[in-house]
Formats: sequence, C-alpha cells, structure tokens
Amino acid sequence: MSKTVVIIGGVAGGMSAATRLRRLDPSADIIVLERSSYVSYANCGLPYHVSGVIENRDALILQTPEGLNTRFNLDVRVETEAVEIHPDTKTVVARHVHRGEFTTLQYDVLILSPGASTIIPPIPGVERAMPLRTVEDMDALKAIVNPSQETEQHMGDDVVDMLALGEAKRPSHVTVIGGGFIGVEVAENMRHMGIEVALVEAASQVLAPFDPEMVKPVEDAMRLNGIDLHVNSQAAAIEEHAVVLADGSRIETDLVVLAIGVRPDTSLAKMAGLEVGPRGGIKVDEYLRTSDPSIYAVGDAVEKTDALDGNASLVPLANIANRQGRVVADHIAGLTPRVVPAQVTAIVKVFSLAVASTGWNEKRLKAAGRPYIAVHTHPGQHAGYYPGQALMSLKLLFDPTTHEILGAQGVGTDGVDKRIDVIATAMRGGITAPELMDLELAYAPPFSSAKDPVNMLGYVADNIASGRMEVVQWSELEQLQAEGAVIVDVRTRYEFSRGAIPGALHIPIDDLRNRFVELPRDRKIVVYCQVGQRGHTAAMYLRGMGFNAINLDGGIKTWAASPAKR
Amino acid sequence: MSKTVVIIGGVAGGMSAATRLRRLDPSADIIVLERSSYVSYANCGLPYHVSGVIENRDALILQTPEGLNTRFNLDVRVETEAVEIHPDTKTVVARHVHRGEFTTLQYDVLILSPGASTIIPPIPGVERAMPLRTVEDMDALKAIVNPSQETEQHMGDDVVDMLALGEAKRPSHVTVIGGGFIGVEVAENMRHMGIEVALVEAASQVLAPFDPEMVKPVEDAMRLNGIDLHVNSQAAAIEEHAVVLADGSRIETDLVVLAIGVRPDTSLAKMAGLEVGPRGGIKVDEYLRTSDPSIYAVGDAVEKTDALDGNASLVPLANIANRQGRVVADHIAGLTPRVVPAQVTAIVKVFSLAVASTGWNEKRLKAAGRPYIAVHTHPGQHAGYYPGQALMSLKLLFDPTTHEILGAQGVGTDGVDKRIDVIATAMRGGITAPELMDLELAYAPPFSSAKDPVNMLGYVADNIASGRMEVVQWSELEQLQAEGAVIVDVRTRYEFSRGAIPGALHIPIDDLRNRFVELPRDRKIVVYCQVGQRGHTAAMYLRGMGFNAINLDGGIKTWAASPAKR
Repeated sequence: MSKTVVIIGGVAGGMSAATRLRRLDPSADIIVLERSSYVSYANCGLPYHVSGVIENRDALILQTPEGLNTRFNLDVRVETEAVEIHPDTKTVVARHVHRGEFTTLQYDVLILSPGASTIIPPIPGVERAMPLRTVEDMDALKAIVNPSQETEQHMGDDVVDMLALGEAKRPSHVTVIGGGFIGVEVAENMRHMGIEVALVEAASQVLAPFDPEMVKPVEDAMRLNGIDLHVNSQAAAIEEHAVVLADGSRIETDLVVLAIGVRPDTSLAKMAGLEVGPRGGIKVDEYLRTSDPSIYAVGDAVEKTDALDGNASLVPLANIANRQGRVVADHIAGLTPRVVPAQVTAIVKVFSLAVASTGWNEKRLKAAGRPYIAVHTHPGQHAGYYPGQALMSLKLLFDPTTHEILGAQGVGTDGVDKRIDVIATAMRGGITAPELMDLELAYAPPFSSAKDPVNMLGYVADNIASGRMEVVQWSELEQLQAEGAVIVDVRTRYEFSRGAIPGALHIPIDDLRNRFVELPRDRKIVVYCQVGQRGHTAAMYLRGMGFNAINLDGGIKTWAASPAKR
Repeated sequence: MSKTVVIIGGVAGGMSAATRLRRLDPSADIIVLERSSYVSYANCGLPYHVSGVIENRDALILQTPEGLNTRFNLDVRVETEAVEIHPDTKTVVARHVHRGEFTTLQYDVLILSPGASTIIPPIPGVERAMPLRTVEDMDALKAIVNPSQETEQHMGDDVVDMLALGEAKRPSHVTVIGGGFIGVEVAENMRHMGIEVALVEAASQVLAPFDPEMVKPVEDAMRLNGIDLHVNSQAAAIEEHAVVLADGSRIETDLVVLAIGVRPDTSLAKMAGLEVGPRGGIKVDEYLRTSDPSIYAVGDAVEKTDALDGNASLVPLANIANRQGRVVADHIAGLTPRVVPAQVTAIVKVFSLAVASTGWNEKRLKAAGRPYIAVHTHPGQHAGYYPGQALMSLKLLFDPTTHEILGAQGVGTDGVDKRIDVIATAMRGGITAPELMDLELAYAPPFSSAKDPVNMLGYVADNIASGRMEVVQWSELEQLQAEGAVIVDVRTRYEFSRGAIPGALHIPIDDLRNRFVELPRDRKIVVYCQVGQRGHTAAMYLRGMGFNAINLDGGIKTWAASPAKR
C-alpha cells in the first residue's frame, strides 16, 4: 500500500522534499498545500523583478502545479492553507483561501515547510509599510513603483483598490526600514529605477553578519549611489507621508518598505503541540523530525544546529532549505542521509560590490568569549599587471590554538564570491587557517595571482600561528598607544603625506636598516603600511634585530575603515 | 657566524626562497645568481605584453636587484650564470654572461631554481622559430610583431641585428607550434593584434590536460576567432616562409613561435652529480633536498610527488614553485614546514572562455587502469532568471568505491575558476564526491543558484554512488546500442526536431507515464535529455516501474561534444 505524504508549503524545502521523494518512491501519494498562489518560486529574485532588472515575471515562477503534476505526479494545491493539524488522528484540515471550503487530509507522514514571515514592529502606522517576502508582495510593490501590464494582471485586490482610490501614484521617494540583505537589495533596486531612497537601520551598521570595518565600503557605496543612510536609527511611526524616527526627526517619503527581518512561522506547529526550540524555530532532530515522529519540518521555520558550537540557530537560507528537503525525503524513503550542521555562507550584491561571509564574525566570537585571531588583507582579484585589477578586502578568523577556521568575510567588486566559497569549503574539509597557503588554486593572470588571496590569508595566518609574527588589530591600537607603544609608518613619503595614523613616526621600509637606531628598545613598536605586507617585512626585520615589534593587521586601510574613523 | 646561501635562479621559487629566508634570518648572506637580466618577473604575463593587452612592460618586472637589496638585503647578481657546482668544496663557479669574467662562490647551502627550458624539436629550420619563456624572448617577439619604443630599448642584440638587416617586418601570419597553455595564449594574443594565426598540434586536441569532450568548446572558440587549427599535425620542417607538416602540406607563414612544451633544466644538477628522477627532473625529498644534503632544488626543474598516486611528476606551475621556495627557506631556518603533494590545478583563458582543471583527467585514469565514475553537467554560473546567465560544462571524476574525488574539469565564459577552485579545495580537504552536495556556498541570484553547480555535481555523484542511478558515458553509447539497448530522447518535440541521437525513440518526459508501455522490459533503456537532468528524472521513474533504465551522463550536449561527433 502506498503511503500518503502531505507537505505544507510549496517553496524551497517543501518542494525539494516532494520531487526528491517522488524520484525515490514512484507510488507514494504526495500532496502539497500552499497558501499563496505560487509554488517553487525564486524568492531571492523578488527585489530584482520589482525594479525590472529581472524583466520576465514568469522566470521567477520555476514550476506550476500543473507542470509538477505532469512530470512528478504531485498533487499540488495552491491557495490552500493548512489551518489545523491533528497529530492524534494524523489529519490536516485545509481551507481554500478564496472559496473558504475546508478539506480534511489523512497523512502517514507530514512535512512542514511554512517558511518565515516578515517581522512587523509594533509601531503606529506600520500597516502602511509593504513587506517583500512573497510573489504577492512583489506584485503589489511593483504595481506601485514600476507598474506594467504584466504586473497588473497579477496584483492583489488590495492594490487594485489602492490604485482605484488614487492613493498610489508612483512614488518619488521610498524609505526602506531594515538594513539586512533584503533591505539593502530593495534599496539598490529602488535606486536602479531612479527613485530617491532612505534606509533606516536600528543597529550601528547595515548587514549585521559582517564586522563593522568590512561594512564600511558597503555603506560608502550605498551613499555614493544616493542612498540616504540612517544607522543607529529606529523607526518610531509611519505616517502617511513620512517616517518618524525615535529621535523625533522625520523622513518625508511616499512609500515604506519593511525589511527588518523574518521570524520562523511556527503558528501551525504550535497549534499541533510540536516543540519549539530556544531560538523560536520548530525543534527538529538530525533527520528533521519534530517532536512528533510522523511530522518532519524543514526550511526557514526550523532551528538548525550551528557548525561551530552545536547550538540551535536560525538560518533562513534557500540552499540549506533545499538540502533539508532532500534529507527528509531520503529519510522517509528509508535511506540514511548524511547530517551536516549549518555553517552559514551568504552573499549579497550591493551595487558593484559583492559582500560575502561564512561562519562566525568577530562580533559573535567576542560575545561568545571564544578566543580567535583575526587577519585582514586587501588583495587584487587577479595579478596586478593584468588589466582590470580590482581590490577586495578579506578577513579571516581562526582559533589561536587549533588554528581551525572560524569564519571569513569579503567585500569587493570581483572575485569575492570565489574566495569565500573556497574558504567555506576549506572549513567543511577541516583545513586549518595556515593550511590555506597550501591550497592549489587555479592560476593564470586573468583569474588570480601566483599566490591567490586565499593562499595569502594562509601565509599571514601561518606567520601568526607559528608565533613568528604578532599583529595588532585596528580596535586595539588606541589602547597600545596609551600604553606607550611607538607607531611607525613604513610607507613611502608620498603615501605618508596623504594621511597617516596620528602620532606615527615615518621611516620608509627601505630606510629601516639605516634608521632602526632611532627606535626605542624598551617600548613596543607597532609597524604599519598600506595593507600589511610591507609592515610584515619591516616588523620581521625589527624582531630579528631584537625589537619588540608587531604589525598592524590589514595596514592603515583596515584601520581607516574602522567605525571610529568614519 | 652567519651562513651563506647561494641561490641559482631568481624567478618564482628561487626568489620566494630568498625573501622568505631573509624574513626568517636577518643575518644570512643570501646571494642570488640569475643568468638573464631580470629576476622575479611575471612569466605568466609574457604573452599578454607581446600583444599589448598588458601595456606596461615594467609591470611584469616585479622586483629589481637594487630594490631587493634595499628591502631584503639580498645580493642579486643578474646576467650571471652558474656554470659549475662543486659539492665537495661547496663552491659555485659563476660567469658574467657579457663580460665573461668568472667568480667562485662559497656556500653553506645551495638552492637550485633553474626552471625549465623550451623543448626544441630536432626538425630542419627550427632555429627560425621563436620561443616565449623569458623576458628576453618576449622582447624579441614583441619587437617583431608589435614594436614599440619601450620594447626596442630592451630587445636583444640579435633582434636589433635582424631589424637592421631588414629581415623582420611585421608579420601578417604567425604559426604557433604546440597547443598547450602557452601556445594557445600566444595564438589568442596574436589574433588580438589582427595577425592571421595557424596553430599546429601533434595530438588529437589542444590542451592535453583536458578530456576531448571538454576541449570541444575551446577548439570551437579558437576557430570562431579565426585560428586555423591543425590537430593531429606534426611540424616536419620550418622554411623561410612556411611550416611544412608531416603529411607534406605547407602552411605559408611569416613567423613561427615554438611552444610545444618545456623540460626541466637539469644540466647544472647533472654536472654536479645530483640525482635525476624517473621523469627527468631533479630528484628531491619531501623538504626539497637533492641527493646532496647541502643542495636544495625547487620549481619547474624538480620532480613533484603526485597527490593521487604518489608517483613522481613534472608540474611547471608558478604557485607550486612559490610554495616550494617557502618550504626550502623554512627548512633551512630550522622549521618543519608542512609537506603537501602536487594536486595540480590549472587554468587558461581562451578568448572569452576559461578552461580549468584539477587532479587527474579521464584519459590518465584510463591509462593507469584506475577505476572511476565520470559525471558531466552543463549548469549556469548563476540563477537562470537573473540577467546574463552563461552556461558552463563541468566534469567530475571520482572513485567508485571510496567516492574520493579524482579530478575535475570546467569550461565556460564565467564562474569556471570558482567551481574548480572549490573542488580543488574539497579534494585537499578529503571531501568526497557525494559530499559536494552538502557544501554551503554563497548564494544570491547574481552569483550562483540555490543549488550551486558544485552542489549539483554532488547530487549527481550521490545518485550514482548510492546505486540508485546508473549512467552511461558518451563513449560507451555506441557499444550499448550494438548490444540492443533502446535509446529514448525525453526532450520536447522542438528540441528533438533540432537534432537527436541516431536511432533514438522520442517520448517527451511529460508523456512518459502514459507511454512507458511502449518500451521493452527485456532490454536496456538509455534515457537522455539536453544536459542530463530530465533524463535522470525519467530514468528514475522507469527504474521505479521496473525497467532496466540508465541515464546518458551530461545528456546530448556532452555526447555532441565528443570527438566522434565533430
């Protein structure tokens, strides 16, 4: 007898589970319930269709219920919301969202893939703000900011009403609340259409997964591209033509987009009595079973196990959801899928920049009290002598004792995705930070350097890990200066003249062998250059001569990107 | 007492050793002998300066002897050739290449970094052909094909003589002998200048490190860009205005560039009585010591240990040479450097294509009798719905038992370098082929897909490794057909109409559930689609229904790129 599998949620994790299960089991009855009108759509593409960067709306709808039925024999029911789960009788009650009719479905196995929903802050007027999480959200937003015939066919009734009432005319100014990945993408896409944009972020920086000195170029790029950036700013109220901030100031605006984040949609799971974990997501075991052995859960709604500390974490990423869908299908089909914890690798395009990270950042390591060493570099994506070199900034975090890689971040116009993917793979493979120098990466002048930026991180890490070099971080410099350390700038006269760290002594590296006598032997000496490389050579030389010399990690370039210097 | 280290050869490995050693040991006497006029130059950039793609010649000369002396206190002697080594007295005899004067140097430690030299085939007229291995070669070639004031200052006397005699006028047709990385780069750069180009390659394909079906797009691109490609063609003689091929045909040409490969320069090592290995390179131990304990050797001249089978191999790659230089310096300084075998990752740009590989190819695995499974895919570099998607072809080779990754190859206009670097890193980290599906890679629509191409390789590998799917390679199809297998094309009617595998039955995948009864149960059924994905779904379905169905790996796209189909 074939078994019945009911899946609640037809995007990413839910649909991956459905199609994988079909391939493994030709006879199972697979029913997918999706409350929206769309399954298997490209969530991550939504901001780009609003602006028209992705022209074709259909391109975002990867599968239709009919197509899934024909190819995979799936019973996909859109506009159908699961409203009750009865684990005791193994039934789900579903309601058609328009017709209102109820159906009761019997299941042998239930898979929950309800996703996450936009966090709505409890501020006056928040109902005026538009989210961007679903195809319906996209259609509504696009109908206002970038209307097209195609959009109008699909937009919701509320938007039709708004347009009919003349409330919505194409806005000339949009305020985005929230500076996470989606908020930043929305802001960029609004600018792409020539709309004035303000972005309001409660924290001291946009893009929380990154450390402040890595975000500096991102915020610079946003401002350069005309975004009116308000960090450390809380939206207190949304009025008809303005956003009021907590400090009382007002941003005059025509439209507000809400993107302060998402939270797991656990309403149904809670109603069904399923356990919810410490971070507020559905609690699942390694094979994604909930506290009810017949119910699995996947995707943004569930808590993952963090690769670094094994704790529960919330990671709303499509690639993890897809893999989880497969794990569930395999487990239901009687296979034993591999279990991997969540390492968390993410990237976002911000105008011409790519900003990517994997693992933990320094803020989180510090907060967790976990010891680490940080390395900053500013390499080119390929050989300097080949045309079109573009610089990036990379940051590597590793354990001082085991040298395990704890995380990495990168920002730049080209080649950042490659380096972060390589480091993410190295982390998964248990390659330590110094061992990055041994990686054999593809080198020809248009693609890399003979020492790839990832190799270079390894070289620097090796120098520190071996105890041959000591570095100081931008954040520690002031303290060292206060303790009497001497700061030495070893760059050229020209570089020094264009700006140096206050109080620095200037001895160009090539003069050092004649002038080291000018330095005190009884004080700590912090050497720095532009990006850290000449500083390393100079500090090694001084250490060899018996000085207590250390190198400023990442050079003046990292220091200048630090929050205090903005 | 400080020790004296003499280094023979001032490029890549030699110079890496020198600067690293200086950082570790401020007091050593470090003398570098270089027979050419240049040290530390960017070998890999030479073809691009000939054409002017890299405009600035100085950009290729990374360091000068003076600069190295000032910053690193190195005694760098250019135009100085080591002519004798006396291991018994630990002396080197050097000769100034112009002035002819001899010097005898005493060493405590000697490092050989003589590199490799262009292979000169013994054919009549070969002295007319120009190599491209050194800065001097570059200057000579550029003076003829793309003269500029800057070049003329630096070109050798022989070229000045040629020009003076009026022998060299700017050629309108150049023939490149040899279709390796350098040959292909030279051919492209000649085309870049508008020069007609023929390329002569003795093997059946260009770029030997790649399997034939992966090279097809490269050869197509070369022909499309106007290169007259002669594979399976041996140059038999070089006349004043023609290259004569072994089959008697003639290529009328103005200039011949020789790039059939390099061989380790072991002349000095042999004179010194040092052991040479089975592949003709200087034999070294794990720490790069030669058979004389006071003499190390690095770079293109030495044999490496292959990561896969532990055998000696020749790998003339700059990144390996650089790492070796560091290993030697560390060992001399009393450290214990990590030893890593040579995995061999390489890339070359061919017009708009990147062509990259890591590990072994299928030809080599087959020749060595090593079992393997091959997987071909044809993914986009990023999400299909995001503008500018470009397709690439990837190939993964893995062990059928251990699932160890044995090698990978990629070709495409964008994103190939990233995927090969990720796989190379996975290999180094001991990540198996199916585990590639678990990698957490950075995903946003402009950079990748929710299932990155590397993840997809893992998914396919997992399906095969688990025994749930069986695939057939393009090279095995004919044999299977002869044995009575039925070939089923599951693509759309339109796709089928544009060309199919001869003898294939056409059943579109979405008709399969109604039409599978047409298929015989007593015969093997080979299913195929465009790239292998729908074929997989169809074959899984048929297997579930009890058929002996297998999928054509890589679909008709890989099959169509196979040598027999060209």
